[in-house]
Amino acid sequence: MDITIRAAIKEDCPRMMELIKELAAYENAPEQVTVSFEHFTESGFGASPVWWAYVAEANGRVEGFALYYTRYSTWKGQRMYLEDIIVTEKMRGHGLGKMLMEKLITTAKEKSYSGMMWQVLDWNEPAINFYKKFKEVRFDSEWINCSIDF
Amino acid sequence: MDITIRAAIKEDCPRMMELIKELAAYENAPEQVTVSFEHFTESGFGASPVWWAYVAEANGRVEGFALYYTRYSTWKGQRMYLEDIIVTEKMRGHGLGKMLMEKLITTAKEKSYSGMMWQVLDWNEPAINFYKKFKEVRFDSEWINCSIDF
Repeated sequence: MDITIRAAIKEDCPRMMELIKELAAYENAPEQVTVSFEHFTESGFGASPVWWAYVAEANGRVEGFALYYTRYSTWKGQRMYLEDIIVTEKMRGHGLGKMLMEKLITTAKEKSYSGMMWQVLDWNEPAINFYKKFKEVRFDSEWINCSIDF
Repeated sequence: MDITIRAAIKEDCPRMMELIKELAAYENAPEQVTVSFEHFTESGFGASPVWWAYVAEANGRVEGFALYYTRYSTWKGQRMYLEDIIVTEKMRGHGLGKMLMEKLITTAKEKSYSGMMWQVLDWNEPAINFYKKFKEVRFDSEWINCSIDF
């Protein structure tokens, strides 16, 4: 299989949105995806981008992506926040996720981030096992997420 | 007591850094503050700011602040991520925290964010009780934080 990791371009947005909805369904929350396609595209490729992404192509088709933004930690300074890493169900086990993670780590180092962070649902064992393959990952479950939706 | 909430300016950075270190000590992790003062200031007031903040002054002295950045959620779009909200120990109970939260909520709405989010340590009861005063806050403990430090 021919796998390529490359920076996402604006034309990838429709396919990325498809994968986002696939992941939300897997996480039992399809109704939670309320962002519009226009807002998504503008936030990544408009005048002031707030997210960046890599896509994984297998045989010329986008089968996964990783999307991140800059987090600011008052303890650690600028860090990469990995918002989403997704590989389509049928393409799992072919190394796309690992290649995306390795690309993210390289990019985070190049950007002089002090590290990277993300969250995983505590019942998502396949994802937790995937992250455990990277021996430098630390897991911390003593934080509670708080939110207000407008 | 004369309390004022205002946008942070570059000259507030030394005092803000003091408060960050006070909070880290309270959270039993003083050694975790590894960011340099220069990086902190540059990230807030340099050519490409990645954080913004409000300070709470009581009788002319900064006794608290709230610092946030723009988060991008693939489900909800742009949101306010409240990185830190701090009030000095001796000034707690005077309403500074509440005024800071109200200012953040107003700002997040003005910026057309879809909401705001933050994290709290599960053993930090005073903080959890403070957030519970805002009846629209949702708490979600099923996420695990993952991180890689470089």
